[in-house]
Amino acid sequence: MANSIEVVYTPALLPMHEVKGKTVVVIDILRATTSICVAFQTGAAKILPVATPEECRVFKEFDFLCAAERNALKLDGFDLGNSPFEYQNPLIAGRNIALTTTNGTKAIKMAKELQASNILIGSFLNLSALCDKLSTLAESVILLCAGWKDRFNLEDTLFAGAMVNESASAFQLDCDAALAARELYVSMQDNLEQWVRQSSHAKRFQLLHLQTDDVAFCLQRNTVKLVPMLQGEYIVCKQ
Amino acid sequence: MANSIEVVYTPALLPMHEVKGKTVVVIDILRATTSICVAFQTGAAKILPVATPEECRVFKEFDFLCAAERNALKLDGFDLGNSPFEYQNPLIAGRNIALTTTNGTKAIKMAKELQASNILIGSFLNLSALCDKLSTLAESVILLCAGWKDRFNLEDTLFAGAMVNESASAFQLDCDAALAARELYVSMQDNLEQWVRQSSHAKRFQLLHLQTDDVAFCLQRNTVKLVPMLQGEYIVCKQ
Repeated sequence: MANSIEVVYTPALLPMHEVKGKTVVVIDILRATTSICVAFQTGAAKILPVATPEECRVFKEFDFLCAAERNALKLDGFDLGNSPFEYQNPLIAGRNIALTTTNGTKAIKMAKELQASNILIGSFLNLSALCDKLSTLAESVILLCAGWKDRFNLEDTLFAGAMVNESASAFQLDCDAALAARELYVSMQDNLEQWVRQSSHAKRFQLLHLQTDDVAFCLQRNTVKLVPMLQGEYIVCKQ
Repeated sequence: MANSIEVVYTPALLPMHEVKGKTVVVIDILRATTSICVAFQTGAAKILPVATPEECRVFKEFDFLCAAERNALKLDGFDLGNSPFEYQNPLIAGRNIALTTTNGTKAIKMAKELQASNILIGSFLNLSALCDKLSTLAESVILLCAGWKDRFNLEDTLFAGAMVNESASAFQLDCDAALAARELYVSMQDNLEQWVRQSSHAKRFQLLHLQTDDVAFCLQRNTVKLVPMLQGEYIVCKQ
């Protein structure tokens, strides 16, 4: 029987799926998983996802860069927030980073608890590399959208749909959420940025008057040839 | 500020939403909410949603018709299952019905627990009547998909999308799930039956070799001018 591909719209729905022994791709387009891809592109050594800002701060004394975001804003007293532009700074090359974000780190930890065999980091930036990796692994796949506080969000779903669309032929598609994500992507792909700008999360950004254009950056494709993955407690990138 | 319209893809996600004081439309297209609409069209007096088959059976001695479905099949020893065709039987006119189904009755009970101000029953059969009712109520609305065992399903989402599409102008739309459901509906509406037949639930039916064509029946529009709603413990229909 062919390997399956499923889409899970928020971490709250992950427990309804059999996760053990499957590869999970964690997706938090705006912005955690995009920023993680950029960090490794810039040369970060490894990234430790942690649950809380308090826990994150502890790693300061072990010479980590400490990155904390809540509700789309960088927290005071931390080295980095969650914007991909911050992770282009050459000063992060060779450094370890402790990272806590509103949605992304939670999704990673949940996939680990439920005993996924591999946990990969996905974004539009590394879409092709990721699809190649999935075909090498030859396992059943769950595309896990980080969502927003356990609610559905549009941008993560569209990316999941893009992945299903690119790799559907290699998998058995028997999941309504995957079917819907793919059709949504196909229907919106020609105006992707416009649709994502209508999403609740992008509107949240606009209200915060963020200066850099994170939305456009996060929708770039295949600018990163790496696939970060969890190894023990750390996200690493071995290519 | 305008009233809002939100879509919730499965009961497992309802606790992430503010429900109190809002009207909840419960949606279980294949087949509980469709069958409930048909039952009132046929003249049923009232319907009591109950959690378990055991509880359902108790009402036999109070002269209720007892209806129980699990995993798309009617349970042995009950008067009715969950196919809308069964609810066209003139013998149910004037009768009280106790009903337990895999997904639909759970969604109704959850909306009640979370203190929705009104709980309405939605299906393609009463789509227009429902939209009219929502505009009369003039409250914020949650379209609650019953899903399949707390997972997303296609047919409930498509109906939610159809409702958003019909009534969006009356509401503030600030919910990614509503945006996605509407676009999915718009994209699939010309081949709705074909899409729903690809859904996991319809495939489940096919495997069970169900004889009547429930899928086609459940996608008919505006054949029922009634809007069943919860009153106390009972679903009633007062038009």
